[in-house]
Amino acid sequence: GFVKIDHHRMMRQGFPEVVFCQGKTIDQVVAIMERLIEYNHNILATRATPEMYTAVAAVIPDAQFHEQARLIVVERQPVVVDPDRIIVVMTAGTSDIPVAEEAAITAEIMGNKVRRVYDVGVAGIHRLLAQRQILEEANVLIVVAGMEGALASVVGGMVAKPVIAVPTSVGYGANFGGLAALLAMLNSCAAGVAVVNIDNGFGAGRLASIINHMR
Amino acid sequence: GFVKIDHHRMMRQGFPEVVFCQGKTIDQVVAIMERLIEYNHNILATRATPEMYTAVAAVIPDAQFHEQARLIVVERQPVVVDPDRIIVVMTAGTSDIPVAEEAAITAEIMGNKVRRVYDVGVAGIHRLLAQRQILEEANVLIVVAGMEGALASVVGGMVAKPVIAVPTSVGYGANFGGLAALLAMLNSCAAGVAVVNIDNGFGAGRLASIINHMR
Amino acid sequence: GFVKIDHHRMMRQGFPEVVFCQGKTIDQVVAIMERLIEYNHNILATRATPEMYTAVAAVIPDAQFHEQARLIVVERQPVVVDPDRIIVVMTAGTSDIPVAEEAAITAEIMGNKVRRVYDVGVAGIHRLLAQRQILEEANVLIVVAGMEGALASVVGGMVAKPVIAVPTSVGYGANFGGLAALLAMLNSCAAGVAVVNIDNGFGAGRLASIINHMR
Amino acid sequence: GFVKIDHHRMMRQGFPEVVFCQGKTIDQVVAIMERLIEYNHNILATRATPEMYTAVAAVIPDAQFHEQARLIVVERQPVVVDPDRIIVVMTAGTSDIPVAEEAAITAEIMGNKVRRVYDVGVAGIHRLLAQRQILEEANVLIVVAGMEGALASVVGGMVAKPVIAVPTSVGYGANFGGLAALLAMLNSCAAGVAVVNIDNGFGAGRLASIINHMR
Amino acid sequence: GFVKIDHHRMMRQGFPEVVFCQGKTIDQVVAIMERLIEYNHNILATRATPEMYTAVAAVIPDAQFHEQARLIVVERQPVVVDPDRIIVVMTAGTSDIPVAEEAAITAEIMGNKVRRVYDVGVAGIHRLLAQRQILEEANVLIVVAGMEGALASVVGGMVAKPVIAVPTSVGYGANFGGLAALLAMLNSCAAGVAVVNIDNGFGAGRLASIINHMR
Amino acid sequence: GFVKIDHHRMMRQGFPEVVFCQGKTIDQVVAIMERLIEYNHNILATRATPEMYTAVAAVIPDAQFHEQARLIVVERQPVVVDPDRIIVVMTAGTSDIPVAEEAAITAEIMGNKVRRVYDVGVAGIHRLLAQRQILEEANVLIVVAGMEGALASVVGGMVAKPVIAVPTSVGYGANFGGLAALLAMLNSCAAGVAVVNIDNGFGAGRLASIINHMR
Amino acid sequence: GFVKIDHHRMMRQGFPEVVFCQGKTIDQVVAIMERLIEYNHNILATRATPEMYTAVAAVIPDAQFHEQARLIVVERQPVVVDPDRIIVVMTAGTSDIPVAEEAAITAEIMGNKVRRVYDVGVAGIHRLLAQRQILEEANVLIVVAGMEGALASVVGGMVAKPVIAVPTSVGYGANFGGLAALLAMLNSCAAGVAVVNIDNGFGAGRLASIINHMR
Amino acid sequence: GFVKIDHHRMMRQGFPEVVFCQGKTIDQVVAIMERLIEYNHNILATRATPEMYTAVAAVIPDAQFHEQARLIVVERQPVVVDPDRIIVVMTAGTSDIPVAEEAAITAEIMGNKVRRVYDVGVAGIHRLLAQRQILEEANVLIVVAGMEGALASVVGGMVAKPVIAVPTSVGYGANFGGLAALLAMLNSCAAGVAVVNIDNGFGAGRLASIINHMR
Ligand SMILES: Nc1ncnc2c1ncn2[C@@H]1O[C@H](COP(=O)(O)O)[C@@H](O)[C@H]1O
Ligand SMILES: Nc1ncnc2c1ncn2[C@@H]1O[C@H](COP(=O)(O)O)[C@@H](O)[C@H]1O
Ligand SMILES: Nc1ncnc2c1ncn2[C@@H]1O[C@H](COP(=O)(O)O)[C@@H](O)[C@H]1O
Ligand SMILES: Nc1ncnc2c1ncn2[C@@H]1O[C@H](COP(=O)(O)O)[C@@H](O)[C@H]1O
Ligand SMILES: [Mg+2]
Ligand SMILES: [Mg+2]
Ligand SMILES: [Mg+2]
Ligand SMILES: [Mg+2]
Ligand SMILES: [Mg+2]
Ligand SMILES: [Mg+2]
Ligand SMILES: [Mg+2]
Ligand SMILES: [Mg+2]
Repeated sequence: GFVKIDHHRMMRQGFPEVVFCQGKTIDQVVAIMERLIEYNHNILATRATPEMYTAVAAVIPDAQFHEQARLIVVERQPVVVDPDRIIVVMTAGTSDIPVAEEAAITAEIMGNKVRRVYDVGVAGIHRLLAQRQILEEANVLIVVAGMEGALASVVGGMVAKPVIAVPTSVGYGANFGGLAALLAMLNSCAAGVAVVNIDNGFGAGRLASIINHMR
Repeated sequence: GFVKIDHHRMMRQGFPEVVFCQGKTIDQVVAIMERLIEYNHNILATRATPEMYTAVAAVIPDAQFHEQARLIVVERQPVVVDPDRIIVVMTAGTSDIPVAEEAAITAEIMGNKVRRVYDVGVAGIHRLLAQRQILEEANVLIVVAGMEGALASVVGGMVAKPVIAVPTSVGYGANFGGLAALLAMLNSCAAGVAVVNIDNGFGAGRLASIINHMR
Repeated sequence: GFVKIDHHRMMRQGFPEVVFCQGKTIDQVVAIMERLIEYNHNILATRATPEMYTAVAAVIPDAQFHEQARLIVVERQPVVVDPDRIIVVMTAGTSDIPVAEEAAITAEIMGNKVRRVYDVGVAGIHRLLAQRQILEEANVLIVVAGMEGALASVVGGMVAKPVIAVPTSVGYGANFGGLAALLAMLNSCAAGVAVVNIDNGFGAGRLASIINHMR
Repeated sequence: GFVKIDHHRMMRQGFPEVVFCQGKTIDQVVAIMERLIEYNHNILATRATPEMYTAVAAVIPDAQFHEQARLIVVERQPVVVDPDRIIVVMTAGTSDIPVAEEAAITAEIMGNKVRRVYDVGVAGIHRLLAQRQILEEANVLIVVAGMEGALASVVGGMVAKPVIAVPTSVGYGANFGGLAALLAMLNSCAAGVAVVNIDNGFGAGRLASIINHMR
Repeated sequence: GFVKIDHHRMMRQGFPEVVFCQGKTIDQVVAIMERLIEYNHNILATRATPEMYTAVAAVIPDAQFHEQARLIVVERQPVVVDPDRIIVVMTAGTSDIPVAEEAAITAEIMGNKVRRVYDVGVAGIHRLLAQRQILEEANVLIVVAGMEGALASVVGGMVAKPVIAVPTSVGYGANFGGLAALLAMLNSCAAGVAVVNIDNGFGAGRLASIINHMR
Repeated sequence: GFVKIDHHRMMRQGFPEVVFCQGKTIDQVVAIMERLIEYNHNILATRATPEMYTAVAAVIPDAQFHEQARLIVVERQPVVVDPDRIIVVMTAGTSDIPVAEEAAITAEIMGNKVRRVYDVGVAGIHRLLAQRQILEEANVLIVVAGMEGALASVVGGMVAKPVIAVPTSVGYGANFGGLAALLAMLNSCAAGVAVVNIDNGFGAGRLASIINHMR
Repeated sequence: GFVKIDHHRMMRQGFPEVVFCQGKTIDQVVAIMERLIEYNHNILATRATPEMYTAVAAVIPDAQFHEQARLIVVERQPVVVDPDRIIVVMTAGTSDIPVAEEAAITAEIMGNKVRRVYDVGVAGIHRLLAQRQILEEANVLIVVAGMEGALASVVGGMVAKPVIAVPTSVGYGANFGGLAALLAMLNSCAAGVAVVNIDNGFGAGRLASIINHMR
Repeated sequence: GFVKIDHHRMMRQGFPEVVFCQGKTIDQVVAIMERLIEYNHNILATRATPEMYTAVAAVIPDAQFHEQARLIVVERQPVVVDPDRIIVVMTAGTSDIPVAEEAAITAEIMGNKVRRVYDVGVAGIHRLLAQRQILEEANVLIVVAGMEGALASVVGGMVAKPVIAVPTSVGYGANFGGLAALLAMLNSCAAGVAVVNIDNGFGAGRLASIINHMR
C-alpha cells in the first residue's frame, strides 16, 4: 500500500503515529485514520482542512475538529493528567493563537494539564511581569511568538525551566515567513531555550509532553 | 562599570551567569570572572582562548581549561549527580567532538552524569543500532551532528525522550556554516526534537541539565 | 516557429525531447506533442495539467494521463525491460509520492522495471530495515524525501549502488520550499549519493534509466 | 584628485563630511583629513586602524584616537551641549560596547550629552527595569544589541521616545553576522523603533544627534 | 480572554495600542476595537480588509476606512497639530503610494501636519530637485520607495533632518519582496537615515510623530 | 496630483517615460496614459493586464495590446529603423518567450529591427550552432533564459558584440524564482555579458535600443 | 575511543571508510589511519594538509600525498581497472583542477581508468566540441566547473551517459562560494545530470566508480 | 597540458583570452602568459598578486603591474583610440577606486579613451550635478559603487547612453559582500542600466569597449 503505518510507535513512543495531513489527499487521510483507529488508541491528525474532517467524521463519528488549530482528535482512551505538572503555553500576540492552540491541544491529548497565557508580548512588558505567578507554577513552558520573537528570551531569562520556543510566520516584510523570529530564538541570550520549526505547534506540544512526563 | 553581573541568576536559575568570552577583551574576561568568583559558586566561561585561560588562571589558580571545548571551569562547590539520570551526548562524526565536549562538560559542572557516544553517524547505521542499550538508559539525549545532521531524526524516532539537537558547522560547500544541519534538524520528521544554535554545545548542555533535574 | 524541436535527441540520447509543460500555453503543448508524435516514438510530457491532457487527447487519442505524477505518456513503441535490473523508488512519507511517481513512470516508459517502496522514512527506522532485501535486489535507487531528507543518507550508507536523491518541497516553515532536504542531501555523509533539483522526479527517473542501461 | 570633498556638507548638514576609513589606504586617509582640517572644523573618521591614526597624528597632532570605537576625532571648535537633552546609549551585553562607543562618541563630538547604560540585556530583565529612571530622563535612545536583539523591542515598549536600534554582529552560528538581530529589530512589535545597519554605531549617533537638536 | 489589551499604552506612549489586523479573525478585530473604544480615545487599526471595516462600522458607526492605506480610524478626541512642524511624506513612484498613505494617515491621527510629495524618484532627479523648498520646510521626512530605494540616500544627503526610510515591496524579480530596497536603505551612504520594515508605513508614521512632538 | 510625469524624458532620453503598470490601479494607468498621449509621442506601458488595456483603449482607441508580452503600445509617430542594425532576441526554451517578446516589442517601438531566435537552449547545442549566421548579422544580442541560464555564456563566447542577458523565472525548486539563472549570468565566464533584472524584458529592450542607435 | 571505525564498510561498499580530515586534529587522523591500515586494504583520506601527511607518513611510510587534491592514498592491494570503461573528468577552467584531481584520484584508487579533459569551458565552445571523440568513449562523465557552471548542461545535452556535476567555489562576488554553479547545475535543462556538493570531488569520484562497476 | 588556450579568441573577439589569476598557482600563471605572448598580442591578466607579477616579469620583462587594479598588462601592439568616443568611469566613493581602475585600464588596453570621475556619490548630489558636462561627452558610462549603489540609478536617469553598473563589495553589515549594491542596480528604476558581477571591473571595461567600438 501507499502507507506503512508505524504501529510500533505506540510502544516505542507512547503515542501512535500522528498524521501529517498537508500534501495528502482526503482519501489518503481517511484511509490512514481508519487503519490507526483499529487499535483503539487516541489519535491525532495535524494540518487538517475542514473537508478532511468531514470525510474522517463520516467513518469515525467521534472524531473532533479544532478548526483554528487544524487538528483532528479521536479520544478512545481516557486521558490521565497530573494536575501538579502544568505546561504553560504563551503567545506574544493574538495572531499567534492558532499555533499555540496546536501545541496546547497536542499536549492535552497526550495527557497533560495546560494553561494558556496569550497576548503578553514584550511591547508591553508589564503584561508579562503580571504573569510571574503562573511562570512559577509551570513545569514546562512553550513560548509562541512571531514578528521578532523576543518573548522567548525574556521568559527564558525569568525561569530555570525548559522553554520550548515556537517561531510563527506572523508578520510581513523582512519577517520572511517566520525567519526573523526563528533566528532570534536560535540566538537567544537566555540559556535553556530550544527551538522547533516555524509554526510547529505540534512538535512543541509533543516535546513538552515528553518532558512533562519525566520522573 | 562596563558590566552588570546578574547576581540574581544563581537564585533564579540555579547556576550563576555564564561568561560568553567571544568579543570580549582578556581584561574584561578576567574582571568578570573575578567578580563572579567572589560568591564562591562554581563558574563557567565559554568560547575561551588559551590566552584568556592563562590570564584567568593567574588570578584564579584553581580554574581549569578544556581546550577542545574552549571552556574555563572553576569548581568551588561539590558537584552532586544522580547516577540514575544519564544525559547521553552523541556525535555523528569525529569532527563534531569539540561541540559535544562543550555540551558534556557544561552538563557535568551543572550536576549531571554524562555518557559520551561519539562517531555513530547514519552513513553506517549499524553503529547507531549497536548503541540501542545506551539509548534505553538515557534520560535526556543531546545529538551533535554537522553535514546533513540526519542523526537527530533517526535517534528522535527511536526513543520517547527529549532529544536536543545541536547542528555543527562541520562540512563545506552547500553546508553554509552549519545551515544544512540546522534546517534538517528543524524539519525533523521525528517529533520530540528541539534545536539550539549552530555549534551551541553550551546551550544544549544547559537545557539538558534543566530537564534532567526535573522531578 | 516558436519551437525548435530537437529531433536529434532520439538518436543522441535514446529518447525524444521531453516536453516541459509548465509556463507553456495549452496550444503550445498540443503543437509540440503533435510535431513529436509524427516520428511515432514514445513521448513524454511533464508537469501537465488536466486541461493540457484533455487538449492533447483530442488530437492524440492514445495519450495517457498520470494525474498525480502530472505526466502525459504516449506509448507507440513496445517498451522492453530487463527484469533483472530493478530501479527501486523509495519515499520517506506519503506526501512525497507524487514526485516518486513522476520518477517511476519516467523510468518505466524509458524501459526499466521499477519497484516502489513508499513511506519508509527515518522517524521509524525499522520500516526501512525491513526492506533490506529489496535494497539488495536493486540495481539503482531513487530516494524521494522532503522535510529533512535524511532517508538518502541512511540508504546511501546501506548499499554500494548509485543513489539518486530527490528532495521534495513537502514541509513548511524553515523548510523553505525544499531547501532543507536539498541541502541535507548535498551534504550527505554517505558517499555515492547524487542529487537532482527539488521535486525533479523526471530528472531522477531519466538518470536512473541511463545508469540502468549501462553494460 | 581621487577625492571630491563635500565642503558644502558643513553648511548643509552642520557637520563636515565624515571619513569612512575602511577600504582606503593610509595615504588616502591622511590626505583627506588634511584637506578637511584646513577649514578648522571638528572632524571625525570612522573604522580607523591604529596605523591610520599614527599617520594622521603625525600631521594633525591634536587628533585623538578611540581604539575600541575605531574613531579618530579632531576637536577644533568648542563642543556645546544642552545638559537637559540626554542621549542614552544602551547595550545588551559587554561585547556590544565597541559599537556603542562609536555611537556615543559620534554623538558627543556633534554636541550632545550622552549617558551609557551597558550590559542590560533581556536575559535578566530586572537589570533593565532597574534603569527605568534613566529611560525617563532620556531624550533619544540608542539600543545596541547582538544575538537576538530583543532589547530594542522591550525598550521601545517602555518609552514614547525615538529609539534607534543598532544590531551588532556579536554572536555565532545562525546569527549570520548580525542578520538575526537586524531582522528582529526590523520586525519589532514596538512602534517607534528605527534601525540602522549592522554595527553602524556612527549612523545611530549621527541620527540621534540630529533628532536631539530639534526644537 | 484571548487578548490582553495594553491599556497603559495611552499613558506610557500617548496613543492607545494600535490593532494589527493581519492574522486575526473579523470577530477578534471587532472585539478588540470595542474594548479599546470604551475609553473614548482615538483608535487606529492597520492592515484591515474592507470586510473587517464593515463589521467594525456596524458597532462603531463613526469608524472611517482608508482603503488604499488599509487603515480603520476612529476619531473621538480632537486632533491638535502644530502647523509649523511638518512631516513630509515622499514616494519614489506611484505604486508606493498605499504605503505612504499608511504613514501619512497614521501621523495625522497622531496629531501632525503632513505634506505629501509623491512620484519624485531618482530616475528623473530634476523632479526631486524641484521640491527643494518643501524639503527646507520639513521637520521630519518619511521616504517611501521600492525597487532600488535610492531616493532615501539622495534625500538624506540633501537635509540635516531625520529621514525615516520605508522600503516597499514594489518591484519584481531580484527585488525579493522589498529586500533590494531594504538593503539599499540600510547601507545608505547618507548619515541620518533610519529604516523600518518593508511596507511598514505605520511604524514610520508613528516614529515621525514621536520625533515631531519633541521639544 | 499623485503622479509627476517626467516630460523631460523624451528630450533627455529620446523616448517618453514608460508606464510600469504593476501595483497601480486601472484608473491610475488610464490617467497617466492620457497625460502622456497629449504630446502625441509613441508610448509604452509594461506589465499591463487585459483589464487595464480595455480601460485604456476606451480613451485611446489606437492603443494596441500584446497580451503575451503584457505591453500596451500607442504608435503616434512613424517608427524609423535602420535595417542593417539588427537586434537578435534569443530564448533558451519556449517558456521564456513572453519575456523575450517584451524585449523585442520594446526595441521595435523604439525604432529597431529585431530578429527572434527562440528555443535554442544548450541542452541541444546544435540548435544554437545552426544559428551562427544570424549571430554574425546581429549588432546587439539579447539572450533570454530561465532554468540554469547557460545560453548567455555560450553566446557570449561566440561573438564580440554586446550581449544583454535576461534571466527568467522559468523553472522550479532550487531555481528560486529566477535566482539560479541570474547568478549564472552574473558569473558568466564570457566577458561582454551584462545582466538585467529577472524577467525584465523591457529593460533589455531599452538598453539594446540605446546601444543599437550609437554611431 | 573517540572514533568508531566502520569496518563493515569494506564489505558493504567495497571500499573502507574514507577519512574526512577537515576538523580533525593531526593526532586523530594518524590514529584513524593506523586503525584502518591494520586490515591492509587500500585507504584514502580527503582534505588532508601537508602536516597531516607528514605525520601519517611517519607511521605508514608507503602513504602518498597528492597535494593539489589534498588526498592521502595508501595502496596495499593491487588496483584492477577495466580499460574499456573510462571515466572522463572534465573542467571548465584551470582553477577547477584541484577539485577535478580529487575526483580523478579517488576514482583511480577505487579501480577505474580515468581520462582528464581540462579547461574546456563554454566561453570557447569549440574547445569542447573538439573533444567529442572522448565524450563518445566515456562510460561515465564528471564535469567540474565553477563560476556559472554551464559546462554541465552542455555536456549533459551531448551524451546519453551519466553526468556527475561538481560545482566549485571558483569565482567571486555573486558566486557566493559556489552557490551560482550549484544552482545552475541543479537547474540543468539537460536531463541525466546529477549534482554533488560544492568542491566535492571525492563524492563525484566515488559515485562515478560505483556506476562504472555496474554490469 | 593543464590549459587549453583559446587562440581563436583574438580572431573571434578582437582580444586574446584574458588570464583570470585567482585560484591559479604562480607557475600556472607564468606558463599561460608565456604561451599567450608567443603571438605578440597585447595581453591582460586580472586579479594578479604582486608575487605573480614578479614571476611574470622575470620572463616577460615588459609586463607592467597596476597594483591597485591587480592587473598585469603587456603592450606589444600599439593601442589606437578614437578620441571622440569617451568611456567615462565613475565611482561613488574613494574606496571603490580599485574596481574602477580595473575597468578603466581594461578599457584602455583594449583601445579606448577613458575619463575618470571619482567620488561623486549621491550623499552629496551636487558633486554629481557638477559633472553634467562630462556626462554629455561620454559615449558609454561605467558606474562603480558599493554600499547602496544608488549612483547607477541617478546617472541612468540623466543620460540616454549605455550605463554599465558595477556593484562593489565596499561596505559592511547588511551589505553582504556587495549584495546590497548588486540588488539595487538590478532593480534600477532607470532603464538602460545593465549590471555585471560584484567587483567585476574587468567585465565592465570589456563590455564598454565592445560597445564603444560599434559603428
Ligand atoms: N502595521 C503594523 N506593523 C507593525 N506593527 C504593528 C502594526 N500595527 C500594529 N502594530 C503593533 O502590533 C502590536 C499588536 O499586536 P497584536 O497583539 O497581535 O494585536 C501593537 O503593539 C502595535 O504597536
Ligand atoms: N571530502 C569529503 N566530502 C564529503 N564526505 C567525505 C569526504 N571525505 C570523507 N567523507 C565521508 O565522511 C565520513 C567520515 O566522517 P568522520 O566520521 O567525521 O571521519 C565517511 O563516511 C566518508 O564517506
Ligand atoms: N517593466 C519594467 N521594469 C522595470 N522598470 C520599469 C518597467 N516599466 C517601466 N519601468 C520604469 O519605471 C518608472 C516608472 O515608475 P512609476 O513612477 O511607478 O510609474 C519609469 O522610469 C520606467 O523607466
Ligand atoms: N520536469 C522537468 N524538469 C526539468 N527539466 C525538464 C522537465 N521536463 C522536461 N525537461 C527538459 O526541458 C527541456 C525542454 O524545455 P522547453 O524547450 O522549454 O520545452 C527538455 O530538454 C527536457 O529535457
Ligand atoms: Mg496584542
Ligand atoms: Mg566517523
Ligand atoms: Mg508516513
Ligand atoms: Mg552581560
Ligand atoms: Mg513615476
Ligand atoms: Mg525547447
Ligand atoms: Mg581557461
Ligand atoms: Mg567620498
